[in-house]
Amino acid sequence: MIIDKLYQSVIEKGPVCVGLDTRLEYIPEYILNSTKSIQDKIFEFNKSIIDATFDVCSCYKLQIACYEALGIEGLMAYSKTLKYIKDIKGISIGDIKRGDISSTAKMYAKAHFEGDFECDFITVSPYMGVDAVSPYFEYVKNKDKGLFVLIKTSNESSNDFQELKVNDEKLYVKVGQKVTSWGSEYIGESGFSCIGGVIGGTHFDEMINIKNRFNNMFFLIPGYGEQGGSAKDIAHLLGKNMSGVVNSSRGIITAHKGKEEGVNFSEFSRREVINMREDILKWLR
Amino acid sequence: MIIDKLYQSVIEKGPVCVGLDTRLEYIPEYILNSTKSIQDKIFEFNKSIIDATFDVCSCYKLQIACYEALGIEGLMAYSKTLKYIKDIKGISIGDIKRGDISSTAKMYAKAHFEGDFECDFITVSPYMGVDAVSPYFEYVKNKDKGLFVLIKTSNESSNDFQELKVNDEKLYVKVGQKVTSWGSEYIGESGFSCIGGVIGGTHFDEMINIKNRFNNMFFLIPGYGEQGGSAKDIAHLLGKNMSGVVNSSRGIITAHKGKEEGVNFSEFSRREVINMREDILKWLR
Repeated sequence: MIIDKLYQSVIEKGPVCVGLDTRLEYIPEYILNSTKSIQDKIFEFNKSIIDATFDVCSCYKLQIACYEALGIEGLMAYSKTLKYIKDIKGISIGDIKRGDISSTAKMYAKAHFEGDFECDFITVSPYMGVDAVSPYFEYVKNKDKGLFVLIKTSNESSNDFQELKVNDEKLYVKVGQKVTSWGSEYIGESGFSCIGGVIGGTHFDEMINIKNRFNNMFFLIPGYGEQGGSAKDIAHLLGKNMSGVVNSSRGIITAHKGKEEGVNFSEFSRREVINMREDILKWLR
Repeated sequence: MIIDKLYQSVIEKGPVCVGLDTRLEYIPEYILNSTKSIQDKIFEFNKSIIDATFDVCSCYKLQIACYEALGIEGLMAYSKTLKYIKDIKGISIGDIKRGDISSTAKMYAKAHFEGDFECDFITVSPYMGVDAVSPYFEYVKNKDKGLFVLIKTSNESSNDFQELKVNDEKLYVKVGQKVTSWGSEYIGESGFSCIGGVIGGTHFDEMINIKNRFNNMFFLIPGYGEQGGSAKDIAHLLGKNMSGVVNSSRGIITAHKGKEEGVNFSEFSRREVINMREDILKWLR
C-alpha cells in the first residue's frame, strides 16, 4: 500500500516533505531570463530542487493553488513536475483540498489520481461528509493511492469552526473519528492507514490529543518554519514511531534567496532539508 | 456591484443558473466525431448551450471538477468558456469550492478572479475559517467579484458535520452567521451581499431557517432536478424577492440525449430552462 511506501521513505530518508509551492519570484534569474516558456522555467526550478533533495526527504507536496494562479502554463508545470516525481519513483502529494458532493468528487478523483495531474496522495476537505470523500476510496483500494483529510489546520482562524464544541467534543475531533473509521479498511503493514490526516504543526495540544486517540493515523503536518510550528512540538507529534511527514515550503525552496542565483541554487534547499531533518530528529533521540 | 448585476439578471431573465458540468459523453456525435481538439469540442458544446439559453437564464455555473478530470485540455475548455461568457456580458460562477489558508487562498483568488480562469463569482469552502476566505474580499471590493460560501450542501452526508449541534445551534447556522457578518460590508443596491451562500435545494427546513435569519444573503441553490430538490420548496426559499439562483446541470445540458444529436441539440436545453423557470415561478404567483 502507498502508506507503507511513504512510511518506508520516512524511515530511510527522514520525515521532511518538500513543499514545491513554486512562485515565479522564487526562481533564480538565470532560469527566469532564459528563453524558455513559463512552464519550462517552473519545471526546471522544481526539477533542480527535487534532484538536490531526493535522498534526504521522504516526499514532495505541490500546492496546486500556486500553479492555478499561473493559469494553463502553471498547470502544465504542475503536471510535468508530478510526472517527473513518478518517473524517478518519488512520492507526490497533490495539495488540492478539494471537497464536493460524490458525483463531483468522482471527477476530482479522476483528475488527480489519473491522467495529467496524477499523484500518489491528495489532500481533501471533509466538510461535506463521507460521500464527498468516499469516491476516492476506490483508488485507495485498487490503484495504490492515499488521502490526507483536513482535520486541524495550521491557520489562526481554524478555530472559527474546527474548535467549536459538539457534545463536549471539538469539531476537529469528530472529524478525526470519522477519518479513522473511514481509514480502518485501508491499513497497511506499517500499521498506518492510507487515509491520513492533516494536522497543523501550530497547535500542540490538539496534535497530541489526536495522536493519542487515533493510533492508525499517519499525519501530514504543515506549519513548520514560516507558520511557526516548533521542531520540538512536531517531534513529539511524530513520536518514535515516526507517524507522519512534516512539510516546509518557503523555508526550503527559497533558501537560495540572497545567496545564490546560479546553477547551484538548489544546494541551499538541500542544506535546509538536512538542517530541518536534524532539527526535528534531535528531539527523538 | 456584481450582486446587483446578478439580481437584475434574475429579475429580467429568471432564476435559472445553467450548470455547464460538461462531460464528453454529453456531447452530440456530430461534434465528437469532428476533427477538432477535445478542448474545442467541449467549447463548441458549451457555446451552443450558452447561445441557446442566454435570454432565459440568469447565469452560468461551471463545475471545474468536470474540466480538471480531462486534464490540461479540459481546463483550456474551461478557460475558453469563461472568456466567452465574459465577452457576451454574461455572468459566470466558477464552482471551485476551494478552501485553504490565507497565503494559499490569495493564490486561488489570483487564479480564479484574474487570468485564464477569471469568472464573476466563485464558490468557497469555509471550514478553515475567515482567513481562508478573507483574501477574496479584496476582489469583491475592488474588482467587482463575488463569492458563494458553502453553508448547507445538497448531499445526504452533509449531515455528518453540518448538522452537528454547537451550543444549541447547528454548525451550518454558525457558518451562516459568519458569512453574514463577512458579507455585511459588501451589500449592494439590491439589498443583497456580494458574499452569498450555497444552500442545497434538498433540505427545506434548513433553507427556510437560513432565509429567515439571514436577510441580506443571496443564495446559490444546487440540487434542482437530479438531486431531488422540488420546485415548490425552492420557490419558497427564493420568495417573492427572488433571493437566489437555482442551478440545474444534467437536466439542462443532457436534455437532447435520445432526441437530437444534430446541430439543433441545444434547443432542448433552451426548452428545459424555460420549463424549469416556469416550474419554479408558478409557485410565486
